[in-house]
Amino acid sequence: MRVYKIPEASVMRLVVYSRLLGQLMAEGVDTVSSRDIARCAGVSSAQVRKDLAYFGAFGTRGVGYQVERLYDSLREILGQDKQRRIMIVGVGRLGWALACYPGFYNKGYTVKAAVDVNPMLIGKAAGPVVVADIKRMEELIAAQEIEMALITVPAAAAQEVADRLVAAGSRAILNFAPCVIRVPHGVQLRNVDLTVNMEMLSFNLLQNS
Amino acid sequence: MRVYKIPEASVMRLVVYSRLLGQLMAEGVDTVSSRDIARCAGVSSAQVRKDLAYFGAFGTRGVGYQVERLYDSLREILGQDKQRRIMIVGVGRLGWALACYPGFYNKGYTVKAAVDVNPMLIGKAAGPVVVADIKRMEELIAAQEIEMALITVPAAAAQEVADRLVAAGSRAILNFAPCVIRVPHGVQLRNVDLTVNMEMLSFNLLQNS
Repeated sequence: MRVYKIPEASVMRLVVYSRLLGQLMAEGVDTVSSRDIARCAGVSSAQVRKDLAYFGAFGTRGVGYQVERLYDSLREILGQDKQRRIMIVGVGRLGWALACYPGFYNKGYTVKAAVDVNPMLIGKAAGPVVVADIKRMEELIAAQEIEMALITVPAAAAQEVADRLVAAGSRAILNFAPCVIRVPHGVQLRNVDLTVNMEMLSFNLLQNS
Repeated sequence: MRVYKIPEASVMRLVVYSRLLGQLMAEGVDTVSSRDIARCAGVSSAQVRKDLAYFGAFGTRGVGYQVERLYDSLREILGQDKQRRIMIVGVGRLGWALACYPGFYNKGYTVKAAVDVNPMLIGKAAGPVVVADIKRMEELIAAQEIEMALITVPAAAAQEVADRLVAAGSRAILNFAPCVIRVPHGVQLRNVDLTVNMEMLSFNLLQNS
């Protein structure tokens, strides 16, 4: 397959554009201007055109982009047409919410396993799966062919879980615990901080006050 | 106060640096190199130096940055030293998890109200607050001096909730519903997509496969 060299911030914006285009398609809209995409995504029109030009999508002056064609291209670029098998490690409130999150399935993410250390949770249904003992984590990664692990354990346990995931062969980890964790080179890691967006908002409020 | 003109992507990285520095402080580390910050944040050293130079923080060659001083500067820049009063609109699993999220309080975000349309939830405790009827949303925004609203209702109801929030004077909205919403100019909005990070990971997996 073709490998695109796209800066990470652009990839993040492409994800936002793809969601917007999906919504426009559902509304029956055929074409959209870079200005309208820009306004909805909160960036400049020039930025939109630059981002889309990375993979050869160019709008027509005065007409804009064809919504459906652009949407399909973006899905392919972003791998949204691939199915990804995910595991949730830590079924507290957040892990539980994620296991049941309806937004995942539409995007091709299927929760195939959930594990926790708490005996009260083991055996309970969490969305599409039954919570298993965290002792079985390594075994489930292999048996369920897990491609992506979501860490939703308390901060103090996050690094240890990450080390176990890496040792078990995980190549993609999403850490929701409020701490920075480290993984060896070659493992894809994203630290998700639910407060990041609030801090961005807070910063913008400060700037405009 | 001083207004910094910092690109949004830099602000997002500053948030990551600030979390890393907080962790280093807790570990008793005095100085840190741009290379170490870079490695943990997953960016280049040059990027770290550029981001920090925006607000006049420069490391000493061969020594690096003073952790505590840099941490305090970042907190001030990002407004992390401010307290923000937040409201949660929609107390489903995700809203509930956010109401109880321990990471918010440390960062200065206090949940002051939570509202829902479901009579089964109204009157129940969700973290530090009791769920109120969504009919009382406007009244609670004023009474609790809400500065930031988190939308965690289903996608189909998100735009209507946003319109009501804007009409009630909300200036900062964080939308967790899996859809893009629109607000008038002057209102700070961030659309949070819990799958964005998974799609970034998925994209990185594709690139490296």
